[in-house]
Amino acid sequence: MTPATATRTALAARAAALDAADPLAAVRGRFLLPEGVVYLDGNSLGALPAAVPPALQDAVARQWGTDLIRSWNDNGWWQAPQRVGDAVGRLVGAAAGQTVVGESTSVQLFNALTAAARLRPGRPLLLTDPDHFPTDQYIADSVGRLLGLEVRRVPARELAAALAADGDRVAVAAYAPVDYRTGELYDMAELTAAAHRAGALILWDLCHAAGALPVRLDGIGADLAVGCGYKYLSGGPGAPAFLYLAHRHQDSFDQPLTGWNGHAEPFAMEGRYRPAPEVSRARIGTPPMLSLLALEAALTAFDGVEMAQVRAKNTSLTGFFLDCADLLLDGLGFSAATPRAADRRGSQVSLRHPEAYPLVQALAARGVIGDMRAPDLLRFGVNALYVSHADVLAAVGELAAVAAAGEHRAERFRRRATVT
Amino acid sequence: MTPATATRTALAARAAALDAADPLAAVRGRFLLPEGVVYLDGNSLGALPAAVPPALQDAVARQWGTDLIRSWNDNGWWQAPQRVGDAVGRLVGAAAGQTVVGESTSVQLFNALTAAARLRPGRPLLLTDPDHFPTDQYIADSVGRLLGLEVRRVPARELAAALAADGDRVAVAAYAPVDYRTGELYDMAELTAAAHRAGALILWDLCHAAGALPVRLDGIGADLAVGCGYKYLSGGPGAPAFLYLAHRHQDSFDQPLTGWNGHAEPFAMEGRYRPAPEVSRARIGTPPMLSLLALEAALTAFDGVEMAQVRAKNTSLTGFFLDCADLLLDGLGFSAATPRAADRRGSQVSLRHPEAYPLVQALAARGVIGDMRAPDLLRFGVNALYVSHADVLAAVGELAAVAAAGEHRAERFRRRATVT
Repeated sequence: MTPATATRTALAARAAALDAADPLAAVRGRFLLPEGVVYLDGNSLGALPAAVPPALQDAVARQWGTDLIRSWNDNGWWQAPQRVGDAVGRLVGAAAGQTVVGESTSVQLFNALTAAARLRPGRPLLLTDPDHFPTDQYIADSVGRLLGLEVRRVPARELAAALAADGDRVAVAAYAPVDYRTGELYDMAELTAAAHRAGALILWDLCHAAGALPVRLDGIGADLAVGCGYKYLSGGPGAPAFLYLAHRHQDSFDQPLTGWNGHAEPFAMEGRYRPAPEVSRARIGTPPMLSLLALEAALTAFDGVEMAQVRAKNTSLTGFFLDCADLLLDGLGFSAATPRAADRRGSQVSLRHPEAYPLVQALAARGVIGDMRAPDLLRFGVNALYVSHADVLAAVGELAAVAAAGEHRAERFRRRATVT
Repeated sequence: MTPATATRTALAARAAALDAADPLAAVRGRFLLPEGVVYLDGNSLGALPAAVPPALQDAVARQWGTDLIRSWNDNGWWQAPQRVGDAVGRLVGAAAGQTVVGESTSVQLFNALTAAARLRPGRPLLLTDPDHFPTDQYIADSVGRLLGLEVRRVPARELAAALAADGDRVAVAAYAPVDYRTGELYDMAELTAAAHRAGALILWDLCHAAGALPVRLDGIGADLAVGCGYKYLSGGPGAPAFLYLAHRHQDSFDQPLTGWNGHAEPFAMEGRYRPAPEVSRARIGTPPMLSLLALEAALTAFDGVEMAQVRAKNTSLTGFFLDCADLLLDGLGFSAATPRAADRRGSQVSLRHPEAYPLVQALAARGVIGDMRAPDLLRFGVNALYVSHADVLAAVGELAAVAAAGEHRAERFRRRATVT
């Protein structure tokens, strides 16, 4: 047995042992995964839950096709944004009555950030992260322009110090707990407390956290949060986003997107906006029901699953990934962008390599799906509900084979697609 | 034969003759209509097109479930907002490259009205209709507040005079061609020209026009328009909305909802917003793909159908409805709210009656679905693609029977549902 073979054999044995002891192993059966594919891009588009196709068929054929307009009452369509909101809330530590689902993440960010700034009048600063996902930065700039506020970019790791120094001028800090590129994890409780000590509000973007981490929105006293439905929640492509609005802010929440669904009496057809009570005032327009009902069905994949189990498993998966990378990718030009400390990483592993784009393409040709972020990051998301340690070993093994053989240098892997 | 029976017989003969001569009669087969139902609420939620269920099944099982993240490239998801936008554009007289689909109507209204006002800096007024659908009024007030503009409510029939008197102070006039309550139709060409003579822009809300009237956005020189996908376009509950942005305004379109999908290089992940070229800059967030692909499939119901045919048929249907109402509802307390002149009504008939709510409920119990708008309007939308003259006669006949017998006075028809 060569040393390389011995290493592989040992890793395979470790993967098998970890998978055999995995309390979530059976949950994989709640997803319809294609044959021959290792799917590590659930941080971009979650896999298809088995509960979705029958739920959608019912939504289309019976609810829309047969019951028609009556479904708004008889099949609970009108209540769906709050009903599905509460289901998302259970996964992010939000008691019922504080979460609504609908619209895109960009729209929810705009609405939430504008309304949050209005809750802190007279404070001239919005803080956001220069490494934040682009849409968050663009929206912060747009809100700043509309409200006459300055947008200051402060990295997450410097946020607590910035709030301590200059926080009485800060209206809202808009941050994410997980860096979408590197997977680095920040301490939500600590940063929330730092914002509150300064009298500022904090708006969390949970796109890379909801369904992956035991977020405790109520527990840490978060003010507002938004997130998408299509990553770790597996709600389908472009699934509606969610907004969390803490009980204590609901009475004074004053949103710019005054759609009729958030009116106190939407069917009174009044000419002036009067916000609905409680979290229902955060509703905006008519929600895309088919996408919303797909998300609702998808969330049943979490039934009986504790977020602590999800966190334990994805920590194990990312740790095992880094170990496999150390052993199998040595000398091939990769370096880990994700922190080594388990409590400082989210549910993904990112590797740096100057040929990230063609490597991800060549890897996909071998049935291992990850993605990349310019210029040099390969990203691998591990959804604890359906990814195994054996998947992780297979992925790193294939990546090693691709890189060692230079497969990615083939012309067909260098052509850029629209979506990378 | 009694006079009443003779009247019914004559109306039935007329309906049969009109339906026999209907060039769109076969199009009804493109919809899956429930048995025993006359559906006259397509102006609120269009019926289910037969093309939708197989398209959605493919979107879910193959595109999402099997191709997963690759579908953004390989199944054309990334291009869908513009591809479906162009398909909607063909129905509203918009040449390709000026229409995008996504988000809710309320969100599109906010984005379009803000951006339109920015195209006319220094003009302090927004005009809108006090009889406009509520969300349009609420959004106008919100935009006015954010931009420091006064919102003045001017009825559509007084708009041309108001623009002539005070138009050089008007930035944008935001109107609908069809009154959603009465079905009254206004002259889009005339009002667009009046806005332009004043140097103002016009933003049309086409919710009750797209798919029902031969709207000629390019032909009349419209500036911007929005509309929903779920009424006469039959795209499904909460189907994504659309935005029309005339070519000449695209380079200077400066939207507040700066989501990453509208960035010049969305996957470069830049920290500053640079708008994409042409109409793609009007994209906002990630679209709800399942709802969007349902809408795309639904639009195929218009294949080979001319909007002039749709208009001719719905004019015939509404005219026949009014004739039936004159003859069958006489003395039962109804009056027509819809104009008698064919060129002054859209694709619906509205009747006034002090007991509108229970009448609509009792009628539904007999299998005729309309809706009501507070306080006293019964609304009946006629989608020319699937409603026949026989349906119209049946509907009015059942309404006459309900009202004559006082069926609607039963307690069970008086209980208010959430959605009316």
